[in-house]
Amino acid sequence: MEKNNGNLVAFRPDIKVVDCTLRDGGLVNNFAFTDEFVKDLYRTNIKAGIDYMEFGYKASKEIFSTKDYGKWKFCEEEDIRAIVGNNDFDMKIAVMTDVGRTDYKNDILKKEDSVIDLVRTATYIHQIPTAIEMIQDAHEKGYETTVNIMAISKVREEELDKGLELLAECDVDVIYLVDSFGAFYPEQIRRLTDKYMNIAEKYGKKIGMHAHNNQQLAFANTIEALTNGASLLDATVSGMGRGAGNCYMESLLAFLRNPRYNLVPVMDFVQKYIKAEKEKGNIWGYDIPYLLTGILNSHPSSAIKFMNEQREDYSRFYQELLDNME
Amino acid sequence: MEKNNGNLVAFRPDIKVVDCTLRDGGLVNNFAFTDEFVKDLYRTNIKAGIDYMEFGYKASKEIFSTKDYGKWKFCEEEDIRAIVGNNDFDMKIAVMTDVGRTDYKNDILKKEDSVIDLVRTATYIHQIPTAIEMIQDAHEKGYETTVNIMAISKVREEELDKGLELLAECDVDVIYLVDSFGAFYPEQIRRLTDKYMNIAEKYGKKIGMHAHNNQQLAFANTIEALTNGASLLDATVSGMGRGAGNCYMESLLAFLRNPRYNLVPVMDFVQKYIKAEKEKGNIWGYDIPYLLTGILNSHPSSAIKFMNEQREDYSRFYQELLDNME
Repeated sequence: MEKNNGNLVAFRPDIKVVDCTLRDGGLVNNFAFTDEFVKDLYRTNIKAGIDYMEFGYKASKEIFSTKDYGKWKFCEEEDIRAIVGNNDFDMKIAVMTDVGRTDYKNDILKKEDSVIDLVRTATYIHQIPTAIEMIQDAHEKGYETTVNIMAISKVREEELDKGLELLAECDVDVIYLVDSFGAFYPEQIRRLTDKYMNIAEKYGKKIGMHAHNNQQLAFANTIEALTNGASLLDATVSGMGRGAGNCYMESLLAFLRNPRYNLVPVMDFVQKYIKAEKEKGNIWGYDIPYLLTGILNSHPSSAIKFMNEQREDYSRFYQELLDNME
Repeated sequence: MEKNNGNLVAFRPDIKVVDCTLRDGGLVNNFAFTDEFVKDLYRTNIKAGIDYMEFGYKASKEIFSTKDYGKWKFCEEEDIRAIVGNNDFDMKIAVMTDVGRTDYKNDILKKEDSVIDLVRTATYIHQIPTAIEMIQDAHEKGYETTVNIMAISKVREEELDKGLELLAECDVDVIYLVDSFGAFYPEQIRRLTDKYMNIAEKYGKKIGMHAHNNQQLAFANTIEALTNGASLLDATVSGMGRGAGNCYMESLLAFLRNPRYNLVPVMDFVQKYIKAEKEKGNIWGYDIPYLLTGILNSHPSSAIKFMNEQREDYSRFYQELLDNME
């Protein structure tokens, strides 16, 4: 039987795949990736035809200590260049800046002095005015820009609409639909993508999708957003990311069936690194505690704690979550 | 933000949940479940509000040896009664009969002599005439009946339409949409569910959904079918089932949000049995080899062999699959 979806999507030249393994995966292992891992991932992504590789955060060293985190929490220019040189490839380099956690005026260099191509700003709904200042700063320094509005599953509809309008009016290139808590079902993603697309098209912006796998819906929600118009798609190798993790790069590349993308180098990377990463005790991926925070639309931190304590009393954890519902 | 889906579905009184853990899960461990496991699952399903519990196959002892399989491959009346007595509960008991592998004339008793309520017939498209004989036999003996048309992702559209019409004209109560190879994407499931529903409504039949998790889409495809009209939903505890496994009962019950269903006893069952089952070396659940057979629309047996041989050379396996494509 014909795979309409695959064919449909294969002819969407606007689609770009963003590898977030170091950034979202860094939340699993405190950014303690070996240089070998990072260099190999960089080479893998180039061979796989990935469009953007996110290296990590541009976190402020005033706020976070380099003793507590690996270098990809900070993404110093020289550290990125040690991996990519001048990045003489089509694949672009991205970093993330969190509102209130980034000394963006000093730490984001002018584009001509940096190998970074894309600055991604992550914001909560109430921080949007500050996010816009950061986006404008990056834009004026010469970077491509995207913005993630986080935790929208807890945001009232009219507030979200207002936030989207504010962002669409600034110079950001792409607005991301983000399911921070893995709380949304595909039908809701469809409706939200339509909302985001309506505003995006009015202002000539693109839409991105960043999903979490709490309900094993990260891939389903990503292709749902994709088939409804989203064009920047976040994924990580084997879904490596905080808590339940993200959309699996393997599934996404297989789905796209676009000759531009190649699944084989990603599978080779998984074979070489992912099992080893898990054997270090770095836990991620679907499990009942993440399902519970997902269906209760709450932050995964309590589920991560549950997993780290190697608890298995799921029902008791469920009651604890219900007792702590806002 | 309102969970439209959940609310929408919560008011579908026609929905029935079918637990297939023993039957599809039995394909993982050769039906070697302890009586304690089976009794506890029975009690768990009653507490969880499950509508049907499938105990296993009614396989012919002429074809299969009782030395090679646990008793749930055969589902003798006395074995089921040893667990459920007269089953004085609302939950109904189901068994599966495979075309060509069941001595249905002798092994399916008259309903008044059996604690079984539902006989599910599994058929390939070319076996439908025989399947109809088996369905009529079960129907005349007094059972509810369902039929699974397997491997439809390899069936030509007009052949499927013809098969569906033939089945809809017989006395079967429910026709199942089955994604045997985990090859379908939600958009395809939507289209197929519409096709099945059109025929079902014409003949007063219901539609069921049985999904596999090769692409981590079993749950997404199940709720896609559900929101498009399917009313019998197959799931297994922690997705236990052949290869990549099935739709997770935990996710499905959480999604339904119907007061009739209760997630807590299922989580308690998972805590008590599932990790232990995996520690016995019984492997199931999403992994790259199953993703590959899924996207290549082929039987999971080669992926199961790959996993059992503890191979990790995914790319080579991918090439082997491509070399063996029909």
